[in-house]
Amino acid sequence: MDTKPDRNIIQVRQSVTRANDRTADKLRKDFHDRGIWVLNLVSSPGAGKTSLIERTLEAFKSSCSILVIEGDPHTRLDSDRINAMGVRGIQINTRGGCHLDARMIGQVLEKTDLDTTDMIIIENVGNLLCPAAWDLGQNHTVVVASLTEGEDKPLKYPEAFIRSQALVVNKIDLKPYLPKSSENLSGNALQVNPSLTVFNVSCTTGTGLADWFQWVCTCSGQTRE
Amino acid sequence: MDTKPDRNIIQVRQSVTRANDRTADKLRKDFHDRGIWVLNLVSSPGAGKTSLIERTLEAFKSSCSILVIEGDPHTRLDSDRINAMGVRGIQINTRGGCHLDARMIGQVLEKTDLDTTDMIIIENVGNLLCPAAWDLGQNHTVVVASLTEGEDKPLKYPEAFIRSQALVVNKIDLKPYLPKSSENLSGNALQVNPSLTVFNVSCTTGTGLADWFQWVCTCSGQTRE
Repeated sequence: MDTKPDRNIIQVRQSVTRANDRTADKLRKDFHDRGIWVLNLVSSPGAGKTSLIERTLEAFKSSCSILVIEGDPHTRLDSDRINAMGVRGIQINTRGGCHLDARMIGQVLEKTDLDTTDMIIIENVGNLLCPAAWDLGQNHTVVVASLTEGEDKPLKYPEAFIRSQALVVNKIDLKPYLPKSSENLSGNALQVNPSLTVFNVSCTTGTGLADWFQWVCTCSGQTRE
Repeated sequence: MDTKPDRNIIQVRQSVTRANDRTADKLRKDFHDRGIWVLNLVSSPGAGKTSLIERTLEAFKSSCSILVIEGDPHTRLDSDRINAMGVRGIQINTRGGCHLDARMIGQVLEKTDLDTTDMIIIENVGNLLCPAAWDLGQNHTVVVASLTEGEDKPLKYPEAFIRSQALVVNKIDLKPYLPKSSENLSGNALQVNPSLTVFNVSCTTGTGLADWFQWVCTCSGQTRE
């Protein structure tokens, strides 16, 4: 069965996403002029975005200046984890809202000194659906998927995979304890977006992270210490 | 930082959820008159809702007549799994939409013979945020959370836990391979909703499912064969 959402809602949404795209384009131009590389991380809740950010900060925080923007419906738990590493972390609470938008990013950056910033990592709200449609002015979008979520997720939730340039498959340390079918996650993701760069990592053991760091170097123009 | 979503969007949403509540109330009355018990399952993508439904069908399909309504943005993968068990499964594709609503449920049920139906299980779209606000006329809402998602999810996404009567913690077979902190998931859920009934299960090994089946018996008035 196909369902047609309410027409008024769709019209309001389209006009809002068009306004969002204009705000995102302005942000992107500003980031470009300042020489800041911006990454937008999207995933289901609990796929490991914050852990991937922590590992990435360990690798890059000595060689470049990084700002992390954390999006969550509630709590400051993630920005507290970032600040505990000695890195600037700003929390955006969406009060139950299901995604970040460009206006939210613009509002926090108005109050933030970006003069020495080389890299901004945005952790979107944990939601494999809604964040995909909202441009935040980023250079790259990366979707993180945990091997434990099941191999069918790219087929059911294709937008997040189609709009991303890379896929980080996390928690591969659990592979021996999961059904054999879990190995099809990357193949299904490449089916919906053949141009995805795929990294198989464990943020717990560190497996596979060297390739991810190299990709960050290449995309951001930054180096690791 | 607190963010204020667009006022026009909020007004449209509120008027739509009020209309949804009225439709849901009509559905609930119809279900009651027909003697049908209705369960709404919500979770992040990949927490194991479909696996929990499969195990529940194995336990109840011989003793009562069950209809499963599967919500997904795309694909018929889940209803195919249900139909393969000899149980009626109806797929609702939301075309990228992030939740089911009462109108969608009403539309599929208009075309469905409910005369001999004892139980309807609705698997909502995999999303820990948006489905929580949309009443589908159910008797009970159950949130499923995988132990691998991390213990902080009830704190970050409280609405789904507040609006549920029970929490099924799934994938407990992976507990030996997860951080010790994962054990705090239930405690955090009870912190946001002390009246939750909690089940710790593995749909892979079957551990803990007997208590879940007993809860389904008690709530639905049905018996297992």
